[in-house]
Amino acid sequence: MDAPREVERWGVFEVSVGGPEAGNPFLDVAFGAEFRYKHRVVPVDGFYDGNGVYRVRFSPDTEGEWRFTTTSNVPELAGKSGTFRCISPGPNNHGPVRVEGYHFRYADGTPYYQVGTTCYAWIHQPAELQEQTLETLRSAPFNKLRMCIFPKHYIYNQNEPDHFPFVGSKEKGFDWTRFNPEFWKNLERRVEQLMEMGIQADLILFHPYDRWGFASMDRETEDRYLRYTVARLAAFRNVWWSFANEYDLMRNKTMADWDHYFLLVQQEDPYQRLRSIHNCRTFYDHNKPWVTHQSIQADPSGTPEWRRNCPKPVVVDECRYEGNIPRHWGNISAREMVHRFWVGTVAGGYVGHGETYLHPEDILWWSKGGVLHGESPPRIAFLRRILEEGPPVGFEPVAREGAAKGDEVFLYYFGLSQPARFTFNLPEEPVYRAELIDPWEMTITPIPGKYRGQAELSLPGRPYLAVRFWKIT
Amino acid sequence: MDAPREVERWGVFEVSVGGPEAGNPFLDVAFGAEFRYKHRVVPVDGFYDGNGVYRVRFSPDTEGEWRFTTTSNVPELAGKSGTFRCISPGPNNHGPVRVEGYHFRYADGTPYYQVGTTCYAWIHQPAELQEQTLETLRSAPFNKLRMCIFPKHYIYNQNEPDHFPFVGSKEKGFDWTRFNPEFWKNLERRVEQLMEMGIQADLILFHPYDRWGFASMDRETEDRYLRYTVARLAAFRNVWWSFANEYDLMRNKTMADWDHYFLLVQQEDPYQRLRSIHNCRTFYDHNKPWVTHQSIQADPSGTPEWRRNCPKPVVVDECRYEGNIPRHWGNISAREMVHRFWVGTVAGGYVGHGETYLHPEDILWWSKGGVLHGESPPRIAFLRRILEEGPPVGFEPVAREGAAKGDEVFLYYFGLSQPARFTFNLPEEPVYRAELIDPWEMTITPIPGKYRGQAELSLPGRPYLAVRFWKIT
Repeated sequence: MDAPREVERWGVFEVSVGGPEAGNPFLDVAFGAEFRYKHRVVPVDGFYDGNGVYRVRFSPDTEGEWRFTTTSNVPELAGKSGTFRCISPGPNNHGPVRVEGYHFRYADGTPYYQVGTTCYAWIHQPAELQEQTLETLRSAPFNKLRMCIFPKHYIYNQNEPDHFPFVGSKEKGFDWTRFNPEFWKNLERRVEQLMEMGIQADLILFHPYDRWGFASMDRETEDRYLRYTVARLAAFRNVWWSFANEYDLMRNKTMADWDHYFLLVQQEDPYQRLRSIHNCRTFYDHNKPWVTHQSIQADPSGTPEWRRNCPKPVVVDECRYEGNIPRHWGNISAREMVHRFWVGTVAGGYVGHGETYLHPEDILWWSKGGVLHGESPPRIAFLRRILEEGPPVGFEPVAREGAAKGDEVFLYYFGLSQPARFTFNLPEEPVYRAELIDPWEMTITPIPGKYRGQAELSLPGRPYLAVRFWKIT
Repeated sequence: MDAPREVERWGVFEVSVGGPEAGNPFLDVAFGAEFRYKHRVVPVDGFYDGNGVYRVRFSPDTEGEWRFTTTSNVPELAGKSGTFRCISPGPNNHGPVRVEGYHFRYADGTPYYQVGTTCYAWIHQPAELQEQTLETLRSAPFNKLRMCIFPKHYIYNQNEPDHFPFVGSKEKGFDWTRFNPEFWKNLERRVEQLMEMGIQADLILFHPYDRWGFASMDRETEDRYLRYTVARLAAFRNVWWSFANEYDLMRNKTMADWDHYFLLVQQEDPYQRLRSIHNCRTFYDHNKPWVTHQSIQADPSGTPEWRRNCPKPVVVDECRYEGNIPRHWGNISAREMVHRFWVGTVAGGYVGHGETYLHPEDILWWSKGGVLHGESPPRIAFLRRILEEGPPVGFEPVAREGAAKGDEVFLYYFGLSQPARFTFNLPEEPVYRAELIDPWEMTITPIPGKYRGQAELSLPGRPYLAVRFWKIT
């Protein structure tokens, strides 16, 4: 048995035990552990990691002394016990993200403002390119990354990955009863690296873009895959479960299938990581109780309607991508991308970025990662700063053009509108100061005066401008 | 009796006869005429024009010798007869506009491409301003003008007009049984001036923006008003009937009321001028048989849906206005206005312009006319040129981005999309040449090469560009 003596709150504690290699341990061996804090018991499933090594991972949410005892149907794996100390989280560890009304908050109380991007198949690229993607993310404004577990077969995505979740290859076929630890070790290393950078890993469990058979596994294999995924990855505090990208394009799956996957993961996941499902055209019913937030593909101008329809955070993970490819979904300008971020924000939603510029080697950020070529990321960083400023957790819409954080901050975005005058509907109390914000130029210019109630301001009469009011304290 | 000897085809022939002034001729006297060409008889209602003068107007659609005999319940007005010769139309007279599928065509076969604008209350302004509006229209790209018969009470529209359709004033009250010939003479002079400039007059019969009582007349008065309007104005070939602006904001009227107005005018109008009704939020059912075309307020991106829902021309008379007022509907940029025109056009619809820039004397084009201040009109003129080029009557949509006139001309507009490459789906035969069009810069640049079938072109990778293919003959 191998296990550390202490672990951060919301960190990953791992126990490994040697055991049988014979037969098919993925099928034959049950392994896990019970974690105890005082009288509380948390049973957690482990997993077989190849070469006779069995592991169980646990992310404690409470500081103090924890005990554990392994469980198994194989005597040599069962009954191993020990203790560890859960210590205070480090400075960059805010815990997992939780839903709070239409918004998000880290477990330690820090607000989380979702600013996502998408690199669907970045972990299926050569190691060097994966490293480059991480390097890019280090200085990018994104705090969530959508990524697939299964490799992707699609335009600009024809290269065969080195490793697969299952043992085998396209040529030789896959052994659907055996997971490939090499693949999973890389995946979880990448998830961990994202975690260290403060980036949520929105793990896409199924998707339709497939030439290997991953989109059409049998139910038994699917369930085993989901359990294995949860056992290996749920302990990472930055994991979110995205049940599908474009679920509605997987014609072989019924709505009952999707309900089943949600229920299974909801039952298995000790941490209740966030759960969503992403549409192409038709929405899944986000009101179903196992859905934690709305993951939407559409123009963010629909945000008011989606908020009305369902009282959960609206995350527009695809609003079309900045780029220049022939496909409609992948060729909006940086200006339009920035505009869509603002539209979603003042409607009280959250928007995601993606980038699809043609590349001589077909390295498009949206799928493979690499480097960013577009002009929207610095503007998205600027918007993230706007999101983060001001005390309450998120912007709530107050008017067609405006949103507020309590009565502390009012943010108006005029988009296509270019009023030369505008009457803002502020509270009669307190008194506010105003700023003109240019989301493209990334400038914030104070507007002289103090404002309250029906406050009329002269504005530049150009489109794509914003105005922010701050409570004068 | 006074009547000319000849009149152009689709021109206005008018007979006037002296008669009684006593009592209330508007209520007491029936007057009209029967117009005959060979064995065909067209009965037409006349109207009282004040000062003992009765008139009947007729627009003949057939060249040759016509006869007429007046009819009346007053002996001195009845039985006056005469003849006139209907001669060939002059060079700028193409006859009235008719609907042809999703498009329009003049009676002489010339295609009519609707490029509208709006000056709701221009005839209720001082004469000098009305003249200035006409002067502006003379060099503007518009071939349709939306205008109200009743004056308008609304923001930026507070001035009292000099004349009203009914005798009286706001202070003294109106005599709802007497029309005011002075008002109607000016209105029909303006309609005639528009006709001479080739501009269709989309006459708005009712609207909600009222402080005089015109939006809440009783049924009898409404019917008399509609009959009088038809009698005076239907003979002008450029008249279109718009039953309302924003009918759905007239809370005192039911859907049955609107049906009634349509039916009444349909029964009374000898020429069956075009009939539509304009919404604020909720569409009237444009499929009702008396509606000739769809007059819509909404983003033109809905055009494909509206075409699917109803097989009649889509005219987006309000897509928001170029301007800078505080109201959402009146503050888009010229660029956005031009974009919306193109979006509607390649979807097989027609779009209308309006302009609302703040003005020190509140002279905003959308309501009062005057001069144009915006940057969209020259670009709209450029698009009108694109519409007019190529032989068949109108553009039919062929793809998300594209429309065609038969197989002669294909027009693609990419809008927000900025593909650096695009594969066009042209017919295998014939062969085409290509042009890059910049709708804002108003440039048309030949692209070298000949194209057919699945034709891939490199494009500049900027938004708001168009590509046109011409059949090589």
